Amino acid sequence: MNRTIIRGGLVITATEELRADVLVDGERIAAIAAPEVAEQWVPAADTVIDAGGHYVIPGGVDGHTHMQMPFGGTFASDTFETGTRAAAWGGTTTIVDFAIQPVGGSLREGLDAWHAKADGQCAIDYGFHMILSDVGDEALKEMDALVAEGITSFKLFMAYPGVFYSDDGQILRAMQQAADNGALTMMHAENGIAIDVLVRQALAAGRTDPGYHGQVRHPLLEAEATHRAIQLSRVAGAPLYVVHVSAAEAVAELTRARDDGLNVFGETCPQYLFLSLDDLARPEFEGAKFVCSTPLRPAEHQADLWRALRTNDLSVVSTDHCPFCFKDQKELGRGDFSKIPNGIPGVENRVDLLHQAVVEGHISRRRWVELACTTPARMFGLHPRKGTIAPGADADIVIYDPHREQVLSAQTHHMNVDYNAYEGKPVTGAVRTVLSRGRVIVDDGEYLGEAGHGRFLRRDTCQYLV
Amino acid sequence: MNRTIIRGGLVITATEELRADVLVDGERIAAIAAPEVAEQWVPAADTVIDAGGHYVIPGGVDGHTHMQMPFGGTFASDTFETGTRAAAWGGTTTIVDFAIQPVGGSLREGLDAWHAKADGQCAIDYGFHMILSDVGDEALKEMDALVAEGITSFKLFMAYPGVFYSDDGQILRAMQQAADNGALTMMHAENGIAIDVLVRQALAAGRTDPGYHGQVRHPLLEAEATHRAIQLSRVAGAPLYVVHVSAAEAVAELTRARDDGLNVFGETCPQYLFLSLDDLARPEFEGAKFVCSTPLRPAEHQADLWRALRTNDLSVVSTDHCPFCFKDQKELGRGDFSKIPNGIPGVENRVDLLHQAVVEGHISRRRWVELACTTPARMFGLHPRKGTIAPGADADIVIYDPHREQVLSAQTHHMNVDYNAYEGKPVTGAVRTVLSRGRVIVDDGEYLGEAGHGRFLRRDTCQYLV
Amino acid sequence: MNRTIIRGGLVITATEELRADVLVDGERIAAIAAPEVAEQWVPAADTVIDAGGHYVIPGGVDGHTHMQMPFGGTFASDTFETGTRAAAWGGTTTIVDFAIQPVGGSLREGLDAWHAKADGQCAIDYGFHMILSDVGDEALKEMDALVAEGITSFKLFMAYPGVFYSDDGQILRAMQQAADNGALTMMHAENGIAIDVLVRQALAAGRTDPGYHGQVRHPLLEAEATHRAIQLSRVAGAPLYVVHVSAAEAVAELTRARDDGLNVFGETCPQYLFLSLDDLARPEFEGAKFVCSTPLRPAEHQADLWRALRTNDLSVVSTDHCPFCFKDQKELGRGDFSKIPNGIPGVENRVDLLHQAVVEGHISRRRWVELACTTPARMFGLHPRKGTIAPGADADIVIYDPHREQVLSAQTHHMNVDYNAYEGKPVTGAVRTVLSRGRVIVDDGEYLGEAGHGRFLRRDTCQYLV
Amino acid sequence: MNRTIIRGGLVITATEELRADVLVDGERIAAIAAPEVAEQWVPAADTVIDAGGHYVIPGGVDGHTHMQMPFGGTFASDTFETGTRAAAWGGTTTIVDFAIQPVGGSLREGLDAWHAKADGQCAIDYGFHMILSDVGDEALKEMDALVAEGITSFKLFMAYPGVFYSDDGQILRAMQQAADNGALTMMHAENGIAIDVLVRQALAAGRTDPGYHGQVRHPLLEAEATHRAIQLSRVAGAPLYVVHVSAAEAVAELTRARDDGLNVFGETCPQYLFLSLDDLARPEFEGAKFVCSTPLRPAEHQADLWRALRTNDLSVVSTDHCPFCFKDQKELGRGDFSKIPNGIPGVENRVDLLHQAVVEGHISRRRWVELACTTPARMFGLHPRKGTIAPGADADIVIYDPHREQVLSAQTHHMNVDYNAYEGKPVTGAVRTVLSRGRVIVDDGEYLGEAGHGRFLRRDTCQYLV
Repeated sequence: MNRTIIRGGLVITATEELRADVLVDGERIAAIAAPEVAEQWVPAADTVIDAGGHYVIPGGVDGHTHMQMPFGGTFASDTFETGTRAAAWGGTTTIVDFAIQPVGGSLREGLDAWHAKADGQCAIDYGFHMILSDVGDEALKEMDALVAEGITSFKLFMAYPGVFYSDDGQILRAMQQAADNGALTMMHAENGIAIDVLVRQALAAGRTDPGYHGQVRHPLLEAEATHRAIQLSRVAGAPLYVVHVSAAEAVAELTRARDDGLNVFGETCPQYLFLSLDDLARPEFEGAKFVCSTPLRPAEHQADLWRALRTNDLSVVSTDHCPFCFKDQKELGRGDFSKIPNGIPGVENRVDLLHQAVVEGHISRRRWVELACTTPARMFGLHPRKGTIAPGADADIVIYDPHREQVLSAQTHHMNVDYNAYEGKPVTGAVRTVLSRGRVIVDDGEYLGEAGHGRFLRRDTCQYLV
Repeated sequence: MNRTIIRGGLVITATEELRADVLVDGERIAAIAAPEVAEQWVPAADTVIDAGGHYVIPGGVDGHTHMQMPFGGTFASDTFETGTRAAAWGGTTTIVDFAIQPVGGSLREGLDAWHAKADGQCAIDYGFHMILSDVGDEALKEMDALVAEGITSFKLFMAYPGVFYSDDGQILRAMQQAADNGALTMMHAENGIAIDVLVRQALAAGRTDPGYHGQVRHPLLEAEATHRAIQLSRVAGAPLYVVHVSAAEAVAELTRARDDGLNVFGETCPQYLFLSLDDLARPEFEGAKFVCSTPLRPAEHQADLWRALRTNDLSVVSTDHCPFCFKDQKELGRGDFSKIPNGIPGVENRVDLLHQAVVEGHISRRRWVELACTTPARMFGLHPRKGTIAPGADADIVIYDPHREQVLSAQTHHMNVDYNAYEGKPVTGAVRTVLSRGRVIVDDGEYLGEAGHGRFLRRDTCQYLV
Repeated sequence: MNRTIIRGGLVITATEELRADVLVDGERIAAIAAPEVAEQWVPAADTVIDAGGHYVIPGGVDGHTHMQMPFGGTFASDTFETGTRAAAWGGTTTIVDFAIQPVGGSLREGLDAWHAKADGQCAIDYGFHMILSDVGDEALKEMDALVAEGITSFKLFMAYPGVFYSDDGQILRAMQQAADNGALTMMHAENGIAIDVLVRQALAAGRTDPGYHGQVRHPLLEAEATHRAIQLSRVAGAPLYVVHVSAAEAVAELTRARDDGLNVFGETCPQYLFLSLDDLARPEFEGAKFVCSTPLRPAEHQADLWRALRTNDLSVVSTDHCPFCFKDQKELGRGDFSKIPNGIPGVENRVDLLHQAVVEGHISRRRWVELACTTPARMFGLHPRKGTIAPGADADIVIYDPHREQVLSAQTHHMNVDYNAYEGKPVTGAVRTVLSRGRVIVDDGEYLGEAGHGRFLRRDTCQYLV
Repeated sequence: MNRTIIRGGLVITATEELRADVLVDGERIAAIAAPEVAEQWVPAADTVIDAGGHYVIPGGVDGHTHMQMPFGGTFASDTFETGTRAAAWGGTTTIVDFAIQPVGGSLREGLDAWHAKADGQCAIDYGFHMILSDVGDEALKEMDALVAEGITSFKLFMAYPGVFYSDDGQILRAMQQAADNGALTMMHAENGIAIDVLVRQALAAGRTDPGYHGQVRHPLLEAEATHRAIQLSRVAGAPLYVVHVSAAEAVAELTRARDDGLNVFGETCPQYLFLSLDDLARPEFEGAKFVCSTPLRPAEHQADLWRALRTNDLSVVSTDHCPFCFKDQKELGRGDFSKIPNGIPGVENRVDLLHQAVVEGHISRRRWVELACTTPARMFGLHPRKGTIAPGADADIVIYDPHREQVLSAQTHHMNVDYNAYEGKPVTGAVRTVLSRGRVIVDDGEYLGEAGHGRFLRRDTCQYLV
């Protein structure tokens, strides 16, 4: 039985900043102790890790990834193996990925397929949300069974007609089911029906460059769908989690709902905080690297996102990691932006980018941990195993060097994709050591983990409901 | 050439209250004059009408009627002949009815059919809005032609899937067309897709009484659709007029939009101001008389509607007159509220009910005239011919007795329907004399008009746009 | 008995645009008539005025002027004689000026003094508001008497401690009295106590230039006082009219109150619409010309003011005309901005500037008339004598040339002040002819009026209360 | 050196619920450990406390008490000795009381006086806020010195003219000073100037019963002052903490400010959550027991307070404990409600009442701890010593029995006052054991503490500022 002591660091959780040592016993955290008490344990420890000058934080929880997801005739370029390894490099020790119900098929079928992809491949622990592509009587019944198996959140799309799209009646029915079985409804909130009209008009008018992707997906059509999802959830009496919020106008809808005390939650992603429509409009098809949906917005939206992260009108920062290589994949959309696979890589960069936000004064250190670790864990029913440093929790721990400088780059990243969305961006702070369930899987630039170490997580229901 | 002088009344317009006389020359108002000046005209007048102790107001403009409309396998029970005669009795001298594009057919086809129904039948002047039931390339092109012919407003439905329903893409396209041709988009704003789920669930659970009609058509689903319509109109850059607003939550959406200075307008109807969900829930299927959509709401919504009428967040009171007899028509829905034809009679009662609101202190006299006459005329491009008392305007004039007491009843009304929604309600104030284009068509309890006097009105575009 | 016919113009009122002729009989408007009817009057007319190609609008009503007002040891440079003459030149035929209760004295004393200044001096009709400088038991009692004499509005100051300032208790008591006697409370809404702290700090820090006047009078301190005045008026159950609103944040408070349907009204002035903090910060003490309170704001506030004028969250545009010559008067504040007399001339320019807003698309022609004429008349109980063109109304009429180009300048203006705040500004549109109670007082560049023609107006109470 | 182990309980903090044991070493918490690890410590422990079936929570932090405060010619009836002992009985281990600057005197003088009252008397640790009664140059300078001594928060009153009242200029200056020295401004937000007018009017009209206290202190006058304080704090660039918020309208102002991301915080008290205007209106002068300011509100305000506690628009629940005996003290106001000493006892009941809110479903267990312990500790610069259970923190710990039933009553309470505001109220849950800095001071119905155990706390500045 492995015993590890992490000594001398500043332990940061969502609410505490402590000069304390952490004792790990096997896969779990056994104790947090003042240094003079921890001293006594040292003789019995197998490993003593010196965290002096470093932060000791919970491993990151990325609640929104799409490993090897099929989209537009191709697949996201990270497998569960490469993607979870990259996550580990970046200080993330848990992902919740999305299994997809095939149109015309069952939830079970989709879930089995995703289990097959992930099983034995992951460097870190993982769970699944389920995407509902085809809501009907059978699918609704299956939801209950999946909740019992730890698939406690279901994603619906108001966008992508003909692919993932559900109409408002299907959404309402799924939400009603969730109101009964305790599941959380996750929503891609864009009015896809209206957007598709604008897409067709843009293409017909010869506006085919990637930048138009950002113009046809109008901020008001995100705000509209956000409001609609909120009202449907109120009618159903069910909680709602809006994914990848990017428009200031959509944030305003969340603020209204949260002021009313509703069980409505919002997520944003680093790309919306650090990139903008200007990137999407880069010439020479370079903008294709930044095609994702919801799209990048004009830079002035960022201030509203940051404020909402502080006021908790946005509660989680996930990545929506969905990498497609520029070559051969993004290039499918040359001459027609609507054919560019939607997605941006980022699972490796999230913890660092949010620390950069600490450095730049957007958020506090505790809020950094809360947004990146604690809230996603509680939101998706993983607390207290994940997202915190506490006795009994899984020993998913990151030892973070707040002073190291690095430059983000595809040259150095570990994601299986041929570009980095933040290429060349200097940030202060870097992961030094990562433990997953007590095992050191990254240390000082070396990867020590292995595929298959990561286990599937049966999740409880959302812990924020009132 | 007929010359008439109306002497001794209090002339009330949207902004004035004047002791003045009105000179009518042929079909038009020729002058408004101080009594001592008007005196000089008396010798040359054919007719001198004494309006002493009475109000002299513009004839009412009812911007929302459905004469002999097909719905649910039956037809609204008022023809253009009976309905416009009843309107005249009630002090309304202009209606704007709805021609309907047949699904699979052209606008022209629908318009021709409605012209055929109305031509030669009407007691008062009339115009048409056009209902778009099937938005496609052809219909969009036809819109421009109709605007040129004086059909300057087009109604879309977010409710009634499979009947009148347009999806958000169709709505957006129609609004874009309207942004170009200057037309006004009228919206039935209820989320019909979600409502239909609730309807099916209610019926499946044995909740078949008329009262459930009000429960399945949830106020939040009206608010949702209202917000959606507003956002789509912003994306299209087109004005929006939301018909028959009944829910406080929908009013709140209009308030937000109007605070932003958008070209967004709201209409409500007397039934939402004077009736409530309690009426819809009357026992013994009596509630069927009150089935209309949007539905009657709990009585506490009324205060918000009155306030919005004062703040101009609601700008128009129309009737949505759409009568179905209780016997044989409303009864189609015994045992299944969804089969009850939707509609309430009211074209004859609107002016009186709004005067009752003056008596009760909800609105001022000038606002009464503005809501019932002037604003609908300007909204639908009929000003300055209709909706005001001014030289050059059509001599559509009502001489109103503010003190006469009456009791609303099917016994005495002139609408071709076997019940009155306000049966037994005492009101103060009554129409005495009505002129339509200079001709007295109602006087002191006698009908002097004739079918075919009323002419089709080519309308200009909305006069409120900024 | 003088009879005049104004022929061939476009008569514009708050709600109408008519091709009609206006018959004036003595001091009053006798009739408005279609041209073919008016034709018959021509033989009996003493004067026929050709208004072809011109607008015929009601004479302007400027609800906020300060002729020869004592301030900071000097007097506003326009007397009632010079000021009302300049008003006439600019198309304004009614002013409501402010009589001032002396500190320690009675309302009567103040009113008598102002009557003495104005009596026999005015070119146009005039009324008085009363400034309450010293609210106590006696003053409160006197209010009732003044209302009976046609002084139906009372102004209070939340600014200028030690001069006009009333504390919140005095304000509340005055409002309670107004709730009883029907008077309208006008409020200078700036937190003068806090502002004075900032003034002292600025001066102590050597920030003495005029531009600092705009910085110490912080927009939030206008918003604060606006909100406070609204709440006090709600507690008292009395209506409120906020004068010279300039900050976007204050507008937002009015919007909130008006959305709630409260009897709360807002006024702004041309200087806030056309000038900005940049003018106040002009070098070489030139900024002193633009010192008034509330102060000019950064230019980005203007869009909110325009929007509020369209949404009716601001209902009136007055001038707050209070001229001080640059030489000897404004110069009193060299080296100490707090000693610069507060005030800007403008009574002559208001109608033209608002027409320029029509030209630039900010407002419609009808709204121009409503803001400049009709609403102030109804707000201050002068309707239907003033502010409209209707039989029975005073024949205060302006014949306006919408196409003439002019350049605003002290070289050409008639105000008794050595600068024009809009010096060099080109505008389209100009007054051609002005009638005051049937008498032509300005025509084609010639002044035909005389001091003493203008009479004191006993005013009714506000006509907008619900 | 005392070593204690608390075994078998459910440790609840603001973010965690853990089955863990707590090791106390001397005055501090040494470790939190999984039971199997804690096992090893048992042999070396001096004391083992069995917490099986109980909650283990941080000791309560009551950020708002007034022990032996002079008010209206009398003194709050609890001394620091009796009051802190009662607090301990009720599970509160830290209070922050208010030292008062005498009018005309220095802060130092006031602080010294309060140190003298508290020194050697307290059962639990205590800190001081400072009440500024007389803001001037000297007082402002003294603020900096006090911050350096751990008095990091200063309370101002917008109420009580002539007693504690500061005008807006004084408030602004104090806030500016706080912006520099990092202090937190606490605000009693009621418009005292306006209220005093209403008080005099009520008394003059013979409305002298305690119930009128609630009517003259109008909810809008709390909302007004709250808004004003917020704007002043924005102008100063300083944070703001609004004490004892009771009106729904005031909550709405906080919500607006917090949506904007401002450093604005709100506190409410159990009396506003569990009592109402009906209590204040109890007959036979019984209502006097419930006289406090802000006053109790109509019961419908409570829903807004609870919602705001969930949305964090209200962040803290303190007691404003300020007891006056009914006999001889409250009775000073017989025949004149304005002479009733303002204050309600409650320091002993807060933790239980908030647990009752958990039982009733208003808040979660974690939120209970956050509102009662963690947030006040962080708000007032006491974290991480107080308000949490973490290594290094003071061993202020409560072992709470969630199932015990009790009835609140003056018969059984330990506060030195002859009535209990919640007399007869049954609640579920009770304190079993209380540790203050490692020492058991209450256990199973026995008081084991002593006067003088409690020490003065030098506080850091607020930890929530962004």
